[in-house]
Amino acid sequence: MAKVGIVMGSDSDMPVMKKAADILTQLGIDFEMTIISAHREPDVFFEYAKTAEEKGFKVIIAGAGMAAHLPGMCAAIFPMPVIGIPMHTTSLGGRDSLYSIVQMPSGIPVATVAINGGANAGILAAKILATSDDAILAKLKEYKEDLKNQVVAKDARLQEVGYENY
Amino acid sequence: MAKVGIVMGSDSDMPVMKKAADILTQLGIDFEMTIISAHREPDVFFEYAKTAEEKGFKVIIAGAGMAAHLPGMCAAIFPMPVIGIPMHTTSLGGRDSLYSIVQMPSGIPVATVAINGGANAGILAAKILATSDDAILAKLKEYKEDLKNQVVAKDARLQEVGYENY
Amino acid sequence: MAKVGIVMGSDSDMPVMKKAADILTQLGIDFEMTIISAHREPDVFFEYAKTAEEKGFKVIIAGAGMAAHLPGMCAAIFPMPVIGIPMHTTSLGGRDSLYSIVQMPSGIPVATVAINGGANAGILAAKILATSDDAILAKLKEYKEDLKNQVVAKDARLQEVGYENY
Amino acid sequence: MAKVGIVMGSDSDMPVMKKAADILTQLGIDFEMTIISAHREPDVFFEYAKTAEEKGFKVIIAGAGMAAHLPGMCAAIFPMPVIGIPMHTTSLGGRDSLYSIVQMPSGIPVATVAINGGANAGILAAKILATSDDAILAKLKEYKEDLKNQVVAKDARLQEVGYENY
Amino acid sequence: MAKVGIVMGSDSDMPVMKKAADILTQLGIDFEMTIISAHREPDVFFEYAKTAEEKGFKVIIAGAGMAAHLPGMCAAIFPMPVIGIPMHTTSLGGRDSLYSIVQMPSGIPVATVAINGGANAGILAAKILATSDDAILAKLKEYKEDLKNQVVAKDARLQEVGYENY
Amino acid sequence: MAKVGIVMGSDSDMPVMKKAADILTQLGIDFEMTIISAHREPDVFFEYAKTAEEKGFKVIIAGAGMAAHLPGMCAAIFPMPVIGIPMHTTSLGGRDSLYSIVQMPSGIPVATVAINGGANAGILAAKILATSDDAILAKLKEYKEDLKNQVVAKDARLQEVGYENY
Amino acid sequence: MAKVGIVMGSDSDMPVMKKAADILTQLGIDFEMTIISAHREPDVFFEYAKTAEEKGFKVIIAGAGMAAHLPGMCAAIFPMPVIGIPMHTTSLGGRDSLYSIVQMPSGIPVATVAINGGANAGILAAKILATSDDAILAKLKEYKEDLKNQVVAKDARLQEVGYENY
Amino acid sequence: MAKVGIVMGSDSDMPVMKKAADILTQLGIDFEMTIISAHREPDVFFEYAKTAEEKGFKVIIAGAGMAAHLPGMCAAIFPMPVIGIPMHTTSLGGRDSLYSIVQMPSGIPVATVAINGGANAGILAAKILATSDDAILAKLKEYKEDLKNQVVAKDARLQEVGYENY
Repeated sequence: MAKVGIVMGSDSDMPVMKKAADILTQLGIDFEMTIISAHREPDVFFEYAKTAEEKGFKVIIAGAGMAAHLPGMCAAIFPMPVIGIPMHTTSLGGRDSLYSIVQMPSGIPVATVAINGGANAGILAAKILATSDDAILAKLKEYKEDLKNQVVAKDARLQEVGYENY
Repeated sequence: MAKVGIVMGSDSDMPVMKKAADILTQLGIDFEMTIISAHREPDVFFEYAKTAEEKGFKVIIAGAGMAAHLPGMCAAIFPMPVIGIPMHTTSLGGRDSLYSIVQMPSGIPVATVAINGGANAGILAAKILATSDDAILAKLKEYKEDLKNQVVAKDARLQEVGYENY
Repeated sequence: MAKVGIVMGSDSDMPVMKKAADILTQLGIDFEMTIISAHREPDVFFEYAKTAEEKGFKVIIAGAGMAAHLPGMCAAIFPMPVIGIPMHTTSLGGRDSLYSIVQMPSGIPVATVAINGGANAGILAAKILATSDDAILAKLKEYKEDLKNQVVAKDARLQEVGYENY
Repeated sequence: MAKVGIVMGSDSDMPVMKKAADILTQLGIDFEMTIISAHREPDVFFEYAKTAEEKGFKVIIAGAGMAAHLPGMCAAIFPMPVIGIPMHTTSLGGRDSLYSIVQMPSGIPVATVAINGGANAGILAAKILATSDDAILAKLKEYKEDLKNQVVAKDARLQEVGYENY
Repeated sequence: MAKVGIVMGSDSDMPVMKKAADILTQLGIDFEMTIISAHREPDVFFEYAKTAEEKGFKVIIAGAGMAAHLPGMCAAIFPMPVIGIPMHTTSLGGRDSLYSIVQMPSGIPVATVAINGGANAGILAAKILATSDDAILAKLKEYKEDLKNQVVAKDARLQEVGYENY
Repeated sequence: MAKVGIVMGSDSDMPVMKKAADILTQLGIDFEMTIISAHREPDVFFEYAKTAEEKGFKVIIAGAGMAAHLPGMCAAIFPMPVIGIPMHTTSLGGRDSLYSIVQMPSGIPVATVAINGGANAGILAAKILATSDDAILAKLKEYKEDLKNQVVAKDARLQEVGYENY
Repeated sequence: MAKVGIVMGSDSDMPVMKKAADILTQLGIDFEMTIISAHREPDVFFEYAKTAEEKGFKVIIAGAGMAAHLPGMCAAIFPMPVIGIPMHTTSLGGRDSLYSIVQMPSGIPVATVAINGGANAGILAAKILATSDDAILAKLKEYKEDLKNQVVAKDARLQEVGYENY
Repeated sequence: MAKVGIVMGSDSDMPVMKKAADILTQLGIDFEMTIISAHREPDVFFEYAKTAEEKGFKVIIAGAGMAAHLPGMCAAIFPMPVIGIPMHTTSLGGRDSLYSIVQMPSGIPVATVAINGGANAGILAAKILATSDDAILAKLKEYKEDLKNQVVAKDARLQEVGYENY
């Protein structure tokens, strides 16, 4: 049963949302990905948000751009954590998406990650599940070790070849 | 029967929303004012937006601050014009409200006025109704004449007393 | 007789303004499109704005970039709604256009849509006319149904092919 | 045993951090509050972050202003969720704090809430714990019902006294 | 005969505009100050701008706030220099005024000074007249000498009393 | 004898500065163009600014990007008008240049034009000279007539071919 | 002999600049404080910057607001480090000062500290001198220890009295 | 023995960091370049920062992007100057990096240079060392002379070929 719902308002957000899905796949966490627009099909959206708990979701990852209402409206209905991913936008660089997602009123938080931060949304979902799942916690620690090793390897190469040849 | 719905997410927005109500009162236009939070009571909100047309509303004026979803969510449901008023905010000066309201995706416009532009929201609602109501159009022209006369009077006073004594 | 005037200050705004025209065409609403610069030919502009009502316009859609004065100056003269479209700009991303259009002083509102929001300007004009025209209202509801169906179709495809192949 | 660590870099952040503590108290969740500066006592900070897991923390709430490194550095060490609260700042309104907290690089997310969003940080921590604790989940639902009732009461008062007397 | 026209859209701009008038008075330059709103009385405004040259104006100083169209519309009509003063605004700090004034399209420049830069607008007008008037040029050089002497005096006091007692 | 000095801090600013030169050439106004860096050769710069008056300059047009000090430092020395052109910049879009040029302290104005506003700087210089030169004034009026005719021609073409074929 | 020059363009900057002086006094470092305006007395300024090296200055701390040219112009002349302090400004919050100071072109760095960061400018000057002065280095380490102890004491008090009574 | 440490959090910063290395090479100053992520390998980072003094570093140049913590965390540990280079970022243009680096709290300065200012970081490091090293000071003066000569050569070419052919 999927523990994480991934939802986006438009398939133009897919390249960013895929990164969240990839991380969850890599960490062995079941998820369900959906395209639902809170603006273009509010009834479908409401049904989605209201049934999310009974479907077994523990976390929703919602991505949106511009006047990005999807994450906040999920958080207004779903009682567990909603992670919001602000999409980069051409004119305002994603400030519009970021402000629309992070500046939620008191009572209705959205756990906001960086602009276009798809991978980090996936990791944050895993960190949330890891609060009660030691297997996921262990995998997150491995993932972190991998991150460290990648930097160590890059530095080793730099020390070997020198910066002019890097 | 009220032709304009005025809705705000929090009563802290009242000082700005009152200006819209005052203009409509002054122009003899019936309205109904409500406090409804799309975030704190999504069911109440949905019911409000869905029944707005049958209640006879031709325009909705919605004010909201920060991650201001109320106007956009109204526009997602109500088929006639929604006017959005972005509230001034302490930290971001209202840019967060403005972007959350004006940067709507294609298909779902919100007619956005200035930050804290309560009076202008009222006037815009009247202008919309004036497209099919000559009495309102006539009152709007009088209102405009008044605006002009106020400036003329100020300038007359300036010419009389001089700028040092103004 | 055209019910909507579409006006832009420069033909460089045409790609955005066309989207407004396309929506109006699609919804069967007559419009008249003109290129007039408030800065480069103020007399022509004044004549245009003053005669707009007698030409039968109910709404003006005005697009402009940078120090975008055209929508606001229209609103200063034309007594019915003016919709402003802020153009994207290279240096400031359209913030200059947006602020110049939306931050109108009390008494003279411009109904502002998103940066480069040509289609939304067209839809907003239709929504305004729909307050007194049931045929347009019906077409807007169909249009909205189409929007919804497009999202539904995208999600159906996602569920079918999976996100890796989308 | 405390499940939530609340940490701030300076006691000037206390008025905001208290709101997080108040929410947790209200929801019956144990927490431990500490003042630790990642900049002024990096050794103390590292020890804190490294031992947080063994102390039983499931979530850390970290508040910081300006070049707000505390939440991000916690997230670099602690393997479960870190919630970041960007403090309002005099010169940049909290944009500096917000960007320093939310714009984390891939691999190290911070769950960011609104500028000065102390209460929301507390609620988000509870939502995270609620993914594996039905009692907390039930309390969160009650809390939400309260939020709704407050708005309903305000609207009832508005309908009773009218907006002029509100 | 007045060589400089000073115009503002609202008497709320008077405290800033007075500084321009004071400088001109101090430098012995005749001016005429007027309150005219391009938005609230476009006909009056057009008449003003069109007759400015024949009244003998060589420079217009125009101050405006928010969607500040007055300076740009003056520049669209008056063939000699228009100096624009962007007013400070509560929500956007005057960025709206600044962008609306400085970001003029090619062909129609406005000589923009700092936000609330009333005195500098007066000095710039004098500098423009000084290009053909040696008496004004001489007075400007005296004015500059005064500015220098004020700084010299402050430094002298600092050297005398020390920074702790300054 | 050149009446206008055009100065830039780096030859990377040439494409923008050329537009100022082209306008002056077109209006028959003598100018002298120089590359001088206030930062890289302060002595050369000081000499330039100090001797500008005796060389016969009535106006200096100075372009600069980033921490754009050149226009302001010219204005600190040269007693007649300095026109500042803020260059577009990759990271901040020219906001850095704009603020560094327009936000001059009281006493030392720079007449600032739009970001990358080379042509407008040339026109503004001509407008300044036109305050005492009827021939330039006449040419500026012709130039304006040309601007108008270009827009009129574009609109005529639009009316002829329709917007779909424009 | 003073090793550090502290210079400000206006005595309105004194409250911030005093903090730099206080730090230097506390660390036993000689300094010379001066009020000099690059804009209002360019000759005095040039003389100051050119003779700074021979006066024995190793570092200059320069504070300035708005179009803040003083630090950058010092850096154009003085061959050793210049530390720039951007002053907070009413309209733009100090962004104007910050950009004018930090965005220096290649070749002419200014070591920029936070907006209103007077104390940090003093500490940075000491850190620079500490690269060749073990006594100053030792004092800086003590200073840091003090900073740490202050935080430790605050946390101790928090643990003692609890957050409700803090 | 290397006197300057150059450190970056990711090898994507290499093109900017190389410019700092090139300047130091050109001025004959030994440096050691490393890739270390404060976020991905906090232990490695702490070890690096703590041993920097004993390795003989007098200055650290740290580059970072987005929530750029590396320079500030170095400054929290290393007792001598840390120079921070904010990296340009796609969405926020480097404002995020700039604010995260420059807005350090009192007590822990970072000497911040321009966005992507790699070369200036190298020059600033040299200026710092020049406070106690006459050979480096002499080389810096030569370097400055070169900068000047490059501008002089460009202007000479401009005077020779004219702006149309430049």
